[in-house]
Amino acid sequence: MTLLGFLDYAGVAVFAATGALSASRKQLDVIGFLFLAAVTGIGGGTLRDVVLGNLPVFWVRDPGYVLVCATVGILVFFTAHLVESRYRLLLWLDAIGLSAYCVMGAAKGFVATGSPTVAIVTGTLTAACGGILRDIIAGEPSVLLRPEIYVTAALAGACVFTAATVFGLALPVASVFGALTAFSIRGGALRFGWSFPAYNSRPGRAPEDVMK
Amino acid sequence: MTLLGFLDYAGVAVFAATGALSASRKQLDVIGFLFLAAVTGIGGGTLRDVVLGNLPVFWVRDPGYVLVCATVGILVFFTAHLVESRYRLLLWLDAIGLSAYCVMGAAKGFVATGSPTVAIVTGTLTAACGGILRDIIAGEPSVLLRPEIYVTAALAGACVFTAATVFGLALPVASVFGALTAFSIRGGALRFGWSFPAYNSRPGRAPEDVMK
Amino acid sequence: MTLLGFLDYAGVAVFAATGALSASRKQLDVIGFLFLAAVTGIGGGTLRDVVLGNLPVFWVRDPGYVLVCATVGILVFFTAHLVESRYRLLLWLDAIGLSAYCVMGAAKGFVATGSPTVAIVTGTLTAACGGILRDIIAGEPSVLLRPEIYVTAALAGACVFTAATVFGLALPVASVFGALTAFSIRGGALRFGWSFPAYNSRPGRAPEDVMK
Repeated sequence: MTLLGFLDYAGVAVFAATGALSASRKQLDVIGFLFLAAVTGIGGGTLRDVVLGNLPVFWVRDPGYVLVCATVGILVFFTAHLVESRYRLLLWLDAIGLSAYCVMGAAKGFVATGSPTVAIVTGTLTAACGGILRDIIAGEPSVLLRPEIYVTAALAGACVFTAATVFGLALPVASVFGALTAFSIRGGALRFGWSFPAYNSRPGRAPEDVMK
Repeated sequence: MTLLGFLDYAGVAVFAATGALSASRKQLDVIGFLFLAAVTGIGGGTLRDVVLGNLPVFWVRDPGYVLVCATVGILVFFTAHLVESRYRLLLWLDAIGLSAYCVMGAAKGFVATGSPTVAIVTGTLTAACGGILRDIIAGEPSVLLRPEIYVTAALAGACVFTAATVFGLALPVASVFGALTAFSIRGGALRFGWSFPAYNSRPGRAPEDVMK
Repeated sequence: MTLLGFLDYAGVAVFAATGALSASRKQLDVIGFLFLAAVTGIGGGTLRDVVLGNLPVFWVRDPGYVLVCATVGILVFFTAHLVESRYRLLLWLDAIGLSAYCVMGAAKGFVATGSPTVAIVTGTLTAACGGILRDIIAGEPSVLLRPEIYVTAALAGACVFTAATVFGLALPVASVFGALTAFSIRGGALRFGWSFPAYNSRPGRAPEDVMK
């Protein structure tokens, strides 16, 4: 298996684990674990394949991805109670998934179009959308709206990977650079609470207070 | 019209009715009824066609499906107040839609790829996603997160249909077996409150309590 | 640039601005502004291209749309605090975006299929879905569920554009008629609180009260 193939399966498996952890937090049954593991594991990649026109999507061409999600979902079902804080674990696994997916998304976008802009967008979009989709379906507070840096990490990883590829670095090297960049930024944000200084920020009022 | 074609229209019509009932609960206007009826009626099948690469999607090829949704939306607009509990009716119609869609999704997935795994996944995914989409757009509490069995019914129906097809049963027979399986399970869950025993289950804490 | 091309870019830019205003209300960082601007700006058109089978989607073929979203996102980041009511501005920009998108969606649907029904549906669906997607991702109360007329404006604009096209009016004329119709209706709803009289309407009860 190539390094990119490994990153692909790893990203799917790790995102699947975050979906199953969400299912555990919502006390769903084992099939609910499988469902949320599958949706979260393959959601971002499905969006990526659809916008690029790579149809049928990757898990229809290779159902092995679905079996990976199912296995992970069952494993988490039987072990989630051993973890002290499932939400903290969810966020760290999400960080790993984000790192793998931003490289995979950028790689597929670049191969399909040759455009660095498209590569950066597909990398960022598909890395962030897996987690956003999970949070919407499971009714979790969205990881996008947390104060620490999130999308920035995916964007930085996609940019580093794309730049390295454009400058002619070998694919495995570019992949490692991209994934490490994303993980360092998101990991630092989780560990040290990194966030951007806001520019003249103020919270939105409730619509009822704005519209009379 | 073939039995599978009937199941298809029936699934769309019944899901459309649940969307319109959600619109009624949210006191939307008649066009809001049409919109939610259409999104819920054709949402799951749209997802199914997209991931399988059957493009343009079914209701673009045959706009009759959209007219079915519109008709159902208007009917519900003028009759929803006659129902004592719209939410209870919504859940039962959702159960019928789930049963029709899990067979349709599995059938289309199997025809497109010949893979039983893909058939089971497209059946389950598209049956469950119509209702999930409706609840997200209408701001209803997600049917996925209710305690009674939900995804399991779709999965069981898709498995029975796929197994029956693989073992060579005629399409109408396999369809009836699959749909009845799904409906019996979901209906039993609604009627008798069936749910899986949880394995070491505990609710998730709020993110604010986990992350200091 | 043709009038339709201008409407297209204008719709994307204006929806991108509403996404960035949502990001401002949620106090996201600058990359969060870019992300929500991009998702909202290109979301409706992505859905339109996917259901019609126009793949890869428009912003993969022409990444200029993404750069428009990014530019708008940065502009809003540095100016949002100057606006007295960001939510009110968001609703008005959303009205402009809705008007541009319902024409664009109907035009692309009609070109792709020749069916007026499909044109009306793709116009309405893609115009309404950009805003709905933004509200779901940003955790805003859904614009669809506000009491004033919303989907109706998109539907009326799509119908007028499609009828004008079928009756042989030139594309620019039909576009202006369609967009003005949608904007007049939505603008009147925002300015004067227009809403349809409800038919025997009553709010939905909470699921806990319905299901014992």
